[in-house]
Amino acid sequence: MRIVVDAMGSDNHPKPDVAGSVLAAREYGDTIILVGDEMLIHTELSTYDTKRLSIEVVNAKQTIEMDDKPSQVIREKPDSSMHIGINMVKNGMADAFVTAGNTGAALGIAMLRGVGLGRIPGVKRPALGVNFPTPERPFLIDNGANADCKPEYLLQFGLMGSIYVERVLGTVNPRVALISNGEEEGKGNTLIQEAAPLLANSGLNFIGNIEPKEFMRGVADVAVADGFTGNILMKTAEAVSSYMAELIRTYMKANPITALGGLLSRSVFSQVKAHLDPDEVGGAPLLGVNGPIIIGHGRSNEVAIKHAIGQARLIVQNDVVETIAARIQGSGST
Amino acid sequence: MRIVVDAMGSDNHPKPDVAGSVLAAREYGDTIILVGDEMLIHTELSTYDTKRLSIEVVNAKQTIEMDDKPSQVIREKPDSSMHIGINMVKNGMADAFVTAGNTGAALGIAMLRGVGLGRIPGVKRPALGVNFPTPERPFLIDNGANADCKPEYLLQFGLMGSIYVERVLGTVNPRVALISNGEEEGKGNTLIQEAAPLLANSGLNFIGNIEPKEFMRGVADVAVADGFTGNILMKTAEAVSSYMAELIRTYMKANPITALGGLLSRSVFSQVKAHLDPDEVGGAPLLGVNGPIIIGHGRSNEVAIKHAIGQARLIVQNDVVETIAARIQGSGST
Repeated sequence: MRIVVDAMGSDNHPKPDVAGSVLAAREYGDTIILVGDEMLIHTELSTYDTKRLSIEVVNAKQTIEMDDKPSQVIREKPDSSMHIGINMVKNGMADAFVTAGNTGAALGIAMLRGVGLGRIPGVKRPALGVNFPTPERPFLIDNGANADCKPEYLLQFGLMGSIYVERVLGTVNPRVALISNGEEEGKGNTLIQEAAPLLANSGLNFIGNIEPKEFMRGVADVAVADGFTGNILMKTAEAVSSYMAELIRTYMKANPITALGGLLSRSVFSQVKAHLDPDEVGGAPLLGVNGPIIIGHGRSNEVAIKHAIGQARLIVQNDVVETIAARIQGSGST
Repeated sequence: MRIVVDAMGSDNHPKPDVAGSVLAAREYGDTIILVGDEMLIHTELSTYDTKRLSIEVVNAKQTIEMDDKPSQVIREKPDSSMHIGINMVKNGMADAFVTAGNTGAALGIAMLRGVGLGRIPGVKRPALGVNFPTPERPFLIDNGANADCKPEYLLQFGLMGSIYVERVLGTVNPRVALISNGEEEGKGNTLIQEAAPLLANSGLNFIGNIEPKEFMRGVADVAVADGFTGNILMKTAEAVSSYMAELIRTYMKANPITALGGLLSRSVFSQVKAHLDPDEVGGAPLLGVNGPIIIGHGRSNEVAIKHAIGQARLIVQNDVVETIAARIQGSGST
């Protein structure tokens, strides 16, 4: 298997991107193609023993930054590592693309005519999935690719999410739910009210509407939302957990007794962090495009990059793209 | 001032509802009218010294429960404490209504023709506001009254929220923002993109779009969202903070060292709880109806009920309803 990794993706690129690729090459034995500034990549690579590893380097003359405006760089940086990496998958020179870079740019380039992979035939809108970090790892789709959605899109998100968690995470007959502001009569907006019967009649294991509380606790394996709502939910969860962690740190330090208490209970906080830290869960698969793409967090460290590469290879190995293509056609939902 | 309180509202009614009313009558010197099952109310009242307090009791033969379906009880329980209480405000027999009961029912009865208060002329949709519990107490509007919104509704939510925080919380020239999934170009759904220029040209102190992180930290005084998004945000915040508190408790108890650590740092957790606990912030004003209504949390204790009554009297004292009426007419946004 050949996986192309954006060496210029993460906030601290190329360090964690290269380091994670080395880890992945070592652990999985696949070929990793690092794309980016070749001087920087070689310098970084030279700090590792890569003799028995299959690592290639492809130069890219441009780099997309986190604060670049997606609509601009998609056109104005055609030689970026993202353009080249995604295009290699399109042209069959690689099996999957992994980046920890600018999400909006990755979405745009994935869909860019002539360069990107485009949609799987029948898919109305590709969507970004993400595993919530609680132990049940519930999968949320869409996490921000589509701010405005129609009920049919949500139906397809449910189908694509279901295939992903079944194939990649091994969940049998995944439970699918819609994120709503309540399960009762009259709750949900028009979008949710119209999507619910579509999902109920889809053959998916649709369990109805759930609230954020149930989502977090893994009541469903796949939670479907429009990209605006999904993104607000994920960002709120992240904001509250880091705010709470910060408050605890501040108040612990405020006097010697609580500081001692904090010291003795330190292990508790690393355990809690693991349950609520998005860094623990690898990258977000972009489902519905005609090839495997994983988008990691900008803050990714080398382990997160390795995990994202691991996810990409599971998508390839388990024919997720092909299965989505077959079932979208068969579902009559196109 | 005469404030009518739903004695049958909270999950543990009538205990906290009556106790909170006694506290309020004592502290504010206003007349409190308790409406509900008069036998139960008198039994509860008899446990307090109410000699010098102005407390009246009005009987209601029906009680709306938390799990009652709003659309049913609005028609089928016309003699409920909510119907009678809200109708007393409509008929000028009281100045404001406070309940910790079923939110959907309260919204419906407030708007019920012939019984409820109806809308302030020119208001398109009444909306539910809520203060987030972080120290800056940012005000979110709408927290669930309107799952589907048009840009003009969001403009009015911004205006009503601005008047509320100015008049009741004393915030000078409140900063108004839209909740969005990012501040950058192309972010936000169509609703947000269309509402933003309306707010920018409204004469309000509109500061643009903010993410949940900024909202929590009080970057804006008034954060505007459709009721679906606002409710998902609030429910996610509540779910994450109680999940995290539960995890910390569980892991602390897991061994003697961390348990000791937990004991020593116990004060930290009550401080943190105060910053993230919705019980700390009183009730939610229903803005846009033609009279003051405060809806408290079902879990309200007596202090929360007293706070909700305190909010209601500030709304009356500071002419919030009248100011909204005047400025909605003047804004040309009707």
